[in-house]
Amino acid sequence: MALPISFDDILAAADRLRPVAHRTPMMRSAAADARTGAQLFFKCENLQRIGAFKFRGAYNALSRFSPAQRQAGAVAFSSGNHAQAVALAARLLGMPATLVMPRDAPAIKVAATRGYGAEVVLYDRRTEDREAIGRQLAAERGMTLVPPYDHPDVMAGQGTAALELIEDMIAAGEGPPEALLVCLGGGGLISGCAVAARHLAPGCRVIGVEPQAGNDVQQSLAIGRIVSIPLPETIADGAQTLHAGELTFAVMRECVDEVVTATDAQLVSTMRFFAERMKLVVEPTGCLAAAAALEGVCALAGRRVGVIVSGGNIDMARFAALLSAPAA
Amino acid sequence: MALPISFDDILAAADRLRPVAHRTPMMRSAAADARTGAQLFFKCENLQRIGAFKFRGAYNALSRFSPAQRQAGAVAFSSGNHAQAVALAARLLGMPATLVMPRDAPAIKVAATRGYGAEVVLYDRRTEDREAIGRQLAAERGMTLVPPYDHPDVMAGQGTAALELIEDMIAAGEGPPEALLVCLGGGGLISGCAVAARHLAPGCRVIGVEPQAGNDVQQSLAIGRIVSIPLPETIADGAQTLHAGELTFAVMRECVDEVVTATDAQLVSTMRFFAERMKLVVEPTGCLAAAAALEGVCALAGRRVGVIVSGGNIDMARFAALLSAPAA
Repeated sequence: MALPISFDDILAAADRLRPVAHRTPMMRSAAADARTGAQLFFKCENLQRIGAFKFRGAYNALSRFSPAQRQAGAVAFSSGNHAQAVALAARLLGMPATLVMPRDAPAIKVAATRGYGAEVVLYDRRTEDREAIGRQLAAERGMTLVPPYDHPDVMAGQGTAALELIEDMIAAGEGPPEALLVCLGGGGLISGCAVAARHLAPGCRVIGVEPQAGNDVQQSLAIGRIVSIPLPETIADGAQTLHAGELTFAVMRECVDEVVTATDAQLVSTMRFFAERMKLVVEPTGCLAAAAALEGVCALAGRRVGVIVSGGNIDMARFAALLSAPAA
Repeated sequence: MALPISFDDILAAADRLRPVAHRTPMMRSAAADARTGAQLFFKCENLQRIGAFKFRGAYNALSRFSPAQRQAGAVAFSSGNHAQAVALAARLLGMPATLVMPRDAPAIKVAATRGYGAEVVLYDRRTEDREAIGRQLAAERGMTLVPPYDHPDVMAGQGTAALELIEDMIAAGEGPPEALLVCLGGGGLISGCAVAARHLAPGCRVIGVEPQAGNDVQQSLAIGRIVSIPLPETIADGAQTLHAGELTFAVMRECVDEVVTATDAQLVSTMRFFAERMKLVVEPTGCLAAAAALEGVCALAGRRVGVIVSGGNIDMARFAALLSAPAA
């Protein structure tokens, strides 16, 4: 069966993103290499616009809207990085955007989203259904709903992160990765990255990393169908998805070699490593892939390993508290 | 009078550093540009090896040792980034290194320096003179003393940071900087950077930024000779120098257009900006140059401005405390 996205879709997304997205740096760390015995190549998407890879998929999706769709604009429901990604992409493309966010979302996130010129519609988490609100807005105003991961244009956009990393590894004379570690929530990032890796780095082992408390994709791949789980309790708030998407699961079945998990304590330890040794602010979800390497979840000694650092959006008070908590 | 270093010295240093130093990224921030009305180009030396620009000068200096000097090795007294820079440079060049550090230096810094294979000699700040100890070691063992700033090879090495930044600005199609902000302690970094800017960006205004509590160079340039001050009380521990060097002052008189100051509160605010908006860990001294722009010390609207972010070495507990302290 044909996959929902092809490598050409990722190349086309890269062309669309080139003038607007940051080509985020690939970073090395002698300390990380010494700890793992591997050669780690970090793709720093925490340094992407809006502080996360989500900008890639949102911009790619919105830039493919028809003139009529552009006129009416985009709607999305998200309290996280996807909201800001859609808001910024809409502003850059000169179209309206409406974000459906919970009334108890951090004020700073609501303000940031409004700061990009988007309309914010607040809802009550306990009594209202954000999907119904989003769909109603879409129907009433003719706006196009942009899902956070289960959409070919979103997946292809996210894949440009791996495309750039593999290109940069080759350009640096290092050769393509032999393993690629990618965090896993709904599967948008890893499905795009896996398609890029399959084409540019044949034989590369693509490894998804879920929070231990929310390993729905690990379960799903084991039994061959999408498993739903209750809301997982984890600090990796960007990976608190209840189940994979239909499209992302189709790609993951085919192109992801393994899914492993990391505990919250391993994420905190990795967050400290990034801050202390690599001078980077990385949010808990963004630490998933690196944790699998640095905390010894995966045996990677002797291999060239790509590691996607997916985002850096964390409240400073929370970041400070996690940095100063006693080590587990 | 001829300056102690020439642009060719900086080019030669760049050749020596190319295989070993990181070419650190140039970063942009839409939020920083919006706040200042300028176009800011950040040179991220917090992402340099050992977490600070000091690696450039130390490596350049040690790589110019004669065979006899290499055999005996390098000695330096420093409790900060210069110690780790000399230790790493010595290891890479296969020579011994001895660092004279205060007995009450943070254990983590002593451990890091030993981790690079260097010998650490501890002294008592209250009763012993580190310079005398360093000179004695140099005399007894034939080791070469590497000063932290007042040395042509150190100054030329530090200048490669500005060289790379200006090259990257031009390569990005932005053109050379119209102003360059550089933090200022002993003057090693700014003197190298000023010589690079004078050559590559004629007309660029070179602005040094000192801690308000330690504005010895501002005073010195005003009266035309080197002023010494008591140990300044500031969180910018890398700029707690008592006076400029003879060589650095000679360059600064000639090539630095202005010296401004930043308060500790402005440094903390800038540190938060870096962490929250740019996802970077920057030490207080590393915030000096950016603070002059972001806190409105200098009027820069409409100009292309290079900003050297000099380092990111800060104890995590202290970093967390500064992030979570109430805003001034």
